[in-house]
Amino acid sequence: MLNAMDPLTQLPVVGMIGGGQLARMTHQSVISLGQSLHVLAASATDAAATIAAKVEIGMHDDLDALRHFAINCDVVTFDHEHVPGAHIRALVADGTVVRPGPEALRYAQDKLQMRQRLAQLDMPMPRWAPISSIADLAEFTTPCVVKTPTGGYDGKGVFVIDEPSQAAELLAVEQPLLAEELVGLDRELAVVVARSASGDLSCYPVVETVQQDGVCTEVIAPASGLAPQQALLAQQIASQIAEALGVVGVMAVELFETNGRLVVNELAMRPHNSGHWTIEGAQVSQFEQHIRAICDYRLGETTPTAPVTVMANVLGGQLTETNNDRRLRKLLAADPGVHVHLYGKQVRPGRKIGHVTVQGDNVDVARRRAVRAAAYLRDGG
Amino acid sequence: MLNAMDPLTQLPVVGMIGGGQLARMTHQSVISLGQSLHVLAASATDAAATIAAKVEIGMHDDLDALRHFAINCDVVTFDHEHVPGAHIRALVADGTVVRPGPEALRYAQDKLQMRQRLAQLDMPMPRWAPISSIADLAEFTTPCVVKTPTGGYDGKGVFVIDEPSQAAELLAVEQPLLAEELVGLDRELAVVVARSASGDLSCYPVVETVQQDGVCTEVIAPASGLAPQQALLAQQIASQIAEALGVVGVMAVELFETNGRLVVNELAMRPHNSGHWTIEGAQVSQFEQHIRAICDYRLGETTPTAPVTVMANVLGGQLTETNNDRRLRKLLAADPGVHVHLYGKQVRPGRKIGHVTVQGDNVDVARRRAVRAAAYLRDGG
Repeated sequence: MLNAMDPLTQLPVVGMIGGGQLARMTHQSVISLGQSLHVLAASATDAAATIAAKVEIGMHDDLDALRHFAINCDVVTFDHEHVPGAHIRALVADGTVVRPGPEALRYAQDKLQMRQRLAQLDMPMPRWAPISSIADLAEFTTPCVVKTPTGGYDGKGVFVIDEPSQAAELLAVEQPLLAEELVGLDRELAVVVARSASGDLSCYPVVETVQQDGVCTEVIAPASGLAPQQALLAQQIASQIAEALGVVGVMAVELFETNGRLVVNELAMRPHNSGHWTIEGAQVSQFEQHIRAICDYRLGETTPTAPVTVMANVLGGQLTETNNDRRLRKLLAADPGVHVHLYGKQVRPGRKIGHVTVQGDNVDVARRRAVRAAAYLRDGG
Repeated sequence: MLNAMDPLTQLPVVGMIGGGQLARMTHQSVISLGQSLHVLAASATDAAATIAAKVEIGMHDDLDALRHFAINCDVVTFDHEHVPGAHIRALVADGTVVRPGPEALRYAQDKLQMRQRLAQLDMPMPRWAPISSIADLAEFTTPCVVKTPTGGYDGKGVFVIDEPSQAAELLAVEQPLLAEELVGLDRELAVVVARSASGDLSCYPVVETVQQDGVCTEVIAPASGLAPQQALLAQQIASQIAEALGVVGVMAVELFETNGRLVVNELAMRPHNSGHWTIEGAQVSQFEQHIRAICDYRLGETTPTAPVTVMANVLGGQLTETNNDRRLRKLLAADPGVHVHLYGKQVRPGRKIGHVTVQGDNVDVARRRAVRAAAYLRDGG
């Protein structure tokens, strides 16, 4: 059991490094458990910094800032993967409880280490190899995928190349890189799994994620028309990875469905965009589940609350209607049943500024409503 | 349309006077709409003060504190009924948008004014009269009820007397008092209705409230076995009152069912304990609905999310298990599907420190689980 350091509530103090929308929604969720999330934010205008009571301003790559923050926390967790591994190990050496721990987290921070470890676990993957030269690409047919092992997210650090020579520029900056075959995609799927400090495991239903230009625009829960044995296989893959890697917290496993076969694409060891639908769509949200897992409370029930839940991301648009309040007002007038989640961020084109969730019985209707609602919030309808 | 004063989000700034659990849950809810509730709290340890980013410390009966708080808000609303009417009218005279406004709010602040107004509206009520002397009680058979018109809540200020002479002590302190016949109770019901600034109205399903020693311990949604025409009548009563009084925001109407007849007991013009079940149990919670109403957004859907939702209040107990964290841990181990809401308050016997919500198909099973969960959080099971 953790300490329960908060003198008023006698509950554990959870600190999250990073003040983005994941920290914002985690704080929102954890208020129900009697807690008040401590947030280390890069700026006072970060999505979580404007709504949480216990905020420190500091950078995630500044060890002094991390130590100053951690000293008031019973357990430290993450809004993103960008904290340097050496810093996390230093916190652990100080006696800080960090969940997920550095030995698990490195597989979400480094895609090459992830591929190597999942290969040991015999997980289904696209063909892959570390490459240090253009010659190493000989075994891949082009087009193929080249990735920088660290620092990528939302499609950043991922390149599809038509010719091996196109990797030259990337190799000049960083070696080794990760090369992967470009698999023929039926669609992309994701599973959010939670593992508690005691080792309890719980999976959410498998979802379909719809991408545009490498950014997720929609999540359909559950993935429509997925054969039950494929859904079970996806959940088994996620559970085996969580178990083998010793993850504590929630982890999203992104999968490709390719000619009816499932292969693992990427891992994220934190609440994830593919799990935002759980706020309304499951008995317990991924945010509360993450806190339950790292505080070692019994995990909640992941049963869906409706036959279909669709989430659509709201990306910053051209702002023909520049006033947020008017855009929101127009959306709610057009469709008062949409669940709105705005992150309190300044609008920049392409930036994720919120999401919407629609529930129903019919996936096409729910998708249409969700996409239309996201358009209202982007452009004013 | 309100101003939208927050420069970062371009959304209206909502300020709530009072920092209790209603403000706490309103802040939690309004994060989804991109907002960050401003809170005027009496103390830094108030339930909302420990979780919200924008908190001022000040008393609700200090006009300077109210003015200082209101100047940064686009609209001001309430966590409780205790702000003096003269102060509210002074804020309105300053140009502050106050919702609900003083002309509506006084009927929730003064039970005698409420009875007089509802009589004009021909609303069904217990027999009542203002009394200034023991002789005025002659028209009531004893036992009867005597109430102080202002300042009461949670059963405080309500007295059942067996003899008219027992009112002497109360009359020596305050006159007039409100006398009411003691109605034979089948049960107590409540309806939460929302009315937006534009006049849109929306009712939640009628619930049954279970009281012990004048404090609500359970809410059953919807009220079981209520005839559809009775449910409709209760919603019509609530809607007519909201309309006639010009309420903006949510209002709870507490009703007695007596020999199959409905009579109005009390009004509360704010989110209310009888609506906490809506967090999980309805498409939109009473907290978001209140904010939608006062910001004049279209109201959300009040459809239930499950056949039965039961809420049980968690009252501070004798604390055989003194550690909050251990009590929560034991509850979640025993019943991981319970929705927990802890208010981050220090435990005192009898004080409301949280609530739990259970959903299901069977009202008896849901009640049993909810009551057991509340007992775990009170005593450690």
